[in-house]
Amino acid sequence: MASGAPLTHYPAATLRAFAAAVFERVGLPPADAALVATRMIEADLSGQDGHGIFRLPQYVRRIRGGAVNVRPSVRVTRTGPGTALVDGDNGMGQLVMTRAAEVAIELARESGVSWVGVRRSNHAGTGALYATMPLAHDMIGLYTAVANANHMAPWGAQELLLGTNPLAIAVPAGEEPPIVLDMATTVVSYGTIKKHAQRGEPLPPGWVVDARGEPITDPARAHEGFLLPIGGYKGSGLALLLGLLAGVLNGAAFGRDVVDFNADDHTPTNTGHVLIAVEIARFLPPAAFKREVDRHVRELRAARRLPGVEAIYLPGERRHARIQERTAHGIPLPAPLVAELDRLAASVGLPLLSAATPA
Amino acid sequence: MASGAPLTHYPAATLRAFAAAVFERVGLPPADAALVATRMIEADLSGQDGHGIFRLPQYVRRIRGGAVNVRPSVRVTRTGPGTALVDGDNGMGQLVMTRAAEVAIELARESGVSWVGVRRSNHAGTGALYATMPLAHDMIGLYTAVANANHMAPWGAQELLLGTNPLAIAVPAGEEPPIVLDMATTVVSYGTIKKHAQRGEPLPPGWVVDARGEPITDPARAHEGFLLPIGGYKGSGLALLLGLLAGVLNGAAFGRDVVDFNADDHTPTNTGHVLIAVEIARFLPPAAFKREVDRHVRELRAARRLPGVEAIYLPGERRHARIQERTAHGIPLPAPLVAELDRLAASVGLPLLSAATPA
Repeated sequence: MASGAPLTHYPAATLRAFAAAVFERVGLPPADAALVATRMIEADLSGQDGHGIFRLPQYVRRIRGGAVNVRPSVRVTRTGPGTALVDGDNGMGQLVMTRAAEVAIELARESGVSWVGVRRSNHAGTGALYATMPLAHDMIGLYTAVANANHMAPWGAQELLLGTNPLAIAVPAGEEPPIVLDMATTVVSYGTIKKHAQRGEPLPPGWVVDARGEPITDPARAHEGFLLPIGGYKGSGLALLLGLLAGVLNGAAFGRDVVDFNADDHTPTNTGHVLIAVEIARFLPPAAFKREVDRHVRELRAARRLPGVEAIYLPGERRHARIQERTAHGIPLPAPLVAELDRLAASVGLPLLSAATPA
Repeated sequence: MASGAPLTHYPAATLRAFAAAVFERVGLPPADAALVATRMIEADLSGQDGHGIFRLPQYVRRIRGGAVNVRPSVRVTRTGPGTALVDGDNGMGQLVMTRAAEVAIELARESGVSWVGVRRSNHAGTGALYATMPLAHDMIGLYTAVANANHMAPWGAQELLLGTNPLAIAVPAGEEPPIVLDMATTVVSYGTIKKHAQRGEPLPPGWVVDARGEPITDPARAHEGFLLPIGGYKGSGLALLLGLLAGVLNGAAFGRDVVDFNADDHTPTNTGHVLIAVEIARFLPPAAFKREVDRHVRELRAARRLPGVEAIYLPGERRHARIQERTAHGIPLPAPLVAELDRLAASVGLPLLSAATPA
């Protein structure tokens, strides 16, 4: 996350094995440890550094603090031909959401569409990880969740009662990369604010405001304010509605009940998510659909550009390029993060990450 | 729409009967004419004036121009336990979407969730009309569509290849009004631009830009530019993804294939929509869910306000108040619109609207 710091590139397999080993040391069964590590390193590969191995120290802190159940019995209750409710038993979010996505795919294959709600889960990383899982089955995926901290106020208010509740939608293409939207409902994510703070760069007005509604431009003061939603009242409304779908409908936390998982290492978050999968063949033959997506992608990409714009990138295009680049050349980690991961390794009696062979 | 012009309030029933009579004169069967008029006046009642009787002259122009089929055979193909594809046979959008919503409710009752895609439809008015239909059945509704004109460019481009593709999500509450989000993916709708033009008010920067990406603030020049998406690349990406779901997946128009229904009175639009319904009881007992929604609504509304903010309104709250107010006191129409509707009535040999008794 820090820029300016020297970067070392590590092979994905190295980081995956490292994270899995750490999780085993803090009590996860080997298969679960491997699966959580796989999802986290997928986030790193796709360029979502804020949801990858960067989170490992925090996850371990919360496991040690008793906030997360390392040996959950995830319970899937099928409640209709197209619906299921997954109780995560307070397990790691990546584990719970992977199971939920599998169920969503299974149900959509039978019913054409599925809506799988999740309660008692935890932070699961970036939504694209799960929204893209149906693609290999010629399905479209939609994901939303209640964020694990409230960084936003309802429109007109100054109290932190809403999260940056994300929305991810993934659609397969033919020869083109899949179209993957993965957005927070705020103008920027809290991770972007942290990056600016690390670099000491001022925040543009329109990102963060204080309790009087005035812009905060000093990144060191960002924590005194709150993030602004996209499109003003629209983004605030969207965060609210997504929160009702992912939180309230599943009996999961929302609003005043949200636990700030950055500040609290002891309390279960009761995180809620939703995954919707829809089978393309119920509407068009998948090959025909993908050809049409390819055509539209190419027409949009070839649109006349604004002056100074070098290229038009569609949602998911940079993600796709990043996955290829990092799979080939490794995942870059800044020195302070490597040092932090080394301390973590030492604390559980594992070899240091810095002793591993770089990519 | 025009402000400053004198307003006359008409009872909803008067406008409904007027619109239905006009539709019958241009060839719609009586039952269809009544249904389309009902949906349009519902939009007026809810304060969505740009989707109500204001559209009648344009609809009639397109019917007369042969762009719309006044006697369609709407065909519903059930493609799975939870999915259906509706072919609107180029009928009025309100007719086609009402049928689609009925199907979505039916399928969700059986399968817990439904995803109903629509092709070969037309402009159907505001999304809230359809997203709210499942609420009476203790369901949640989600609606999206491909807009009937491209007022947006893909992010980085200057070519009009994307619409303001709307997203509507409606969730029932208990004692509180339902939560209804109904938003375009642009910062403002084209209707808002038109209102500013009528009033001669300058446009704030951030609404419309020209082909160099520079703000257009003169409302008379708005047509030279394009609308900006909410959250920059995020809103552009959201419009694209919603367009793939509502358009491409249904074999309906998207991107370069979109027909501008403001400029063209002869070409079918092949409008695509999607309605998703999910039954609350598959996740929580509806009464418990609604109690929780009420609690959160009250907590959000009672949040500490920013200075100068009189009250916090949640999505759908003003809509609800407007419906009650206009049901009781009538729908205000500006004099120029009444004059236009009078000319329309005369052209089909009907009594003038201005001869009707105001509310």
